[in-house]
Amino acid sequence: MNELYDVIIIGGGPAGLTAAIYASRANLKVLIIEAAVNGGKLSKTYEIENYPGIKSISGLELATQLTEHSQQFGAKLISGEVMRIDNTDEGKNVVLKNDDVYSAKAVIVATGTKEKTLALEHADEFTGRGISYCAVCDGFFYRNKNVAIIGGGNSALEESLYLASLAAKVTIIIRRDEFRADASVVDKVKANEKIEIITKHLPESLVIENDRIVGLNIKDVDSGEISKVDCNGIFPYIGADPCTDFLDASILDERGYIIANNDMSTAIPGIYAAGDCIKKDLRQVVTACNDGAIAANSIIKSLK
Amino acid sequence: MNELYDVIIIGGGPAGLTAAIYASRANLKVLIIEAAVNGGKLSKTYEIENYPGIKSISGLELATQLTEHSQQFGAKLISGEVMRIDNTDEGKNVVLKNDDVYSAKAVIVATGTKEKTLALEHADEFTGRGISYCAVCDGFFYRNKNVAIIGGGNSALEESLYLASLAAKVTIIIRRDEFRADASVVDKVKANEKIEIITKHLPESLVIENDRIVGLNIKDVDSGEISKVDCNGIFPYIGADPCTDFLDASILDERGYIIANNDMSTAIPGIYAAGDCIKKDLRQVVTACNDGAIAANSIIKSLK
Repeated sequence: MNELYDVIIIGGGPAGLTAAIYASRANLKVLIIEAAVNGGKLSKTYEIENYPGIKSISGLELATQLTEHSQQFGAKLISGEVMRIDNTDEGKNVVLKNDDVYSAKAVIVATGTKEKTLALEHADEFTGRGISYCAVCDGFFYRNKNVAIIGGGNSALEESLYLASLAAKVTIIIRRDEFRADASVVDKVKANEKIEIITKHLPESLVIENDRIVGLNIKDVDSGEISKVDCNGIFPYIGADPCTDFLDASILDERGYIIANNDMSTAIPGIYAAGDCIKKDLRQVVTACNDGAIAANSIIKSLK
Repeated sequence: MNELYDVIIIGGGPAGLTAAIYASRANLKVLIIEAAVNGGKLSKTYEIENYPGIKSISGLELATQLTEHSQQFGAKLISGEVMRIDNTDEGKNVVLKNDDVYSAKAVIVATGTKEKTLALEHADEFTGRGISYCAVCDGFFYRNKNVAIIGGGNSALEESLYLASLAAKVTIIIRRDEFRADASVVDKVKANEKIEIITKHLPESLVIENDRIVGLNIKDVDSGEISKVDCNGIFPYIGADPCTDFLDASILDERGYIIANNDMSTAIPGIYAAGDCIKKDLRQVVTACNDGAIAANSIIKSLK
């Protein structure tokens, strides 16, 4: 029989790591399972200016601090991709893609979201060689080159500032005629001489020469006219989807976000949720941490 | 006519300071009004081990960092005690006890809670000279003396550990036969040789000699028997009340906590609430910060 954890936390971003801090400080036996990078999407963020108490920190550094903090009180952290959660007499079995099985009395799903991929012809085959979803990971490859960013939200604009520090020129393409991002970020983008903003355009097709991306054709949303942006790199920030495919659809909303109660429980007993993957209005590092603390606290109370 | 702020935040603890970070980063004009100490109750807390990303920090240091962060994007911070909030054509007038008036389009109430005072004869006249509600502020006066702590929650136990580093002996008196605090704190308290725990007793009366406290009589909750604890200092941590006297009772629950919606709005348009003063299950620094971020975000959206 498997070792029985008190709680298994699926996802090692800010929500999951905070849940681990709270649960393990209450002497619960905690396992965190992270599919990719510890710290989650945070680790790929260039700079964080609004994590309360820390004026400015790189996403990777805050992710590292959170990861270290999460293991301070005995929580265990492993790599693995979760395929499904089964019910057992003692609680839940968490089954990984490699068929490993871990058992716990309760589970917290804190899997976050994943950037939507660009739906253009050939986009898949150029992902990783011309199309990137992580400016911090791949920006270095575009030193002194031209890059295009698609999207007008906070992620798009923050990463455009980062890319502007490396690239020769950054072109931001947005569908609407205004940004959806925080005013202070918009101001910085507008003041940056390396950044050009093209409003009311949509990506139309990749321009490929000799098996390499050399540009992006864009379409005017009003006139339908096509024009070309010269670029070697394309960074789409066109929204995100929750990483909840492995869950029972009965606890998801129509967009796949988990419906969580105020105490972070779900309609399935023993399954709690926290962070960006739940249905909510404001997705921030500090709000994810909040959810993780509450989810852990609810489990602490239910196990007592 | 007064200068018109976009938002006035009443209370400069973690919730209010985080609201200030978020609102001012969105270019809103922000005024924070704090009645006592910047950082609120946090500044009087000895050590924080569960603010995600920071393994260990003194309450005062985290309070200082939050206060500095809150002014990073232009928010203004003043001292003052709020007496009432009036409606105006543009929004709200916040009236202080000294009759100063500040105007804003919206208000966030983030006033936190205040420790309940000890209801024993003479307790009021000995507050500040034998009875203290702040171990971090006053613990130094009890070096190598005996102190008594009343209460079994997290605050009581955390402060008892702090006092044990200064005092000759610390006696914790709790009503029940078990603590309500986090397991890791309970373990530390039990392992500390300077700390004695007396369960199932209630404070009965102060023992006063030559106008000074020399002990505390306590009563066995089962037998009614009275015994005496020798001590020069008494630190009651017997719960807290929300600081919401100045608000319209229509937005308060029966215990005085503010009833806030998920977006931190209240039943009164233009008044939002955040942090320990709202009705909620888990009162922590990170959950207060969460509320502040959400309240600010709701106001940002409503003013757009």
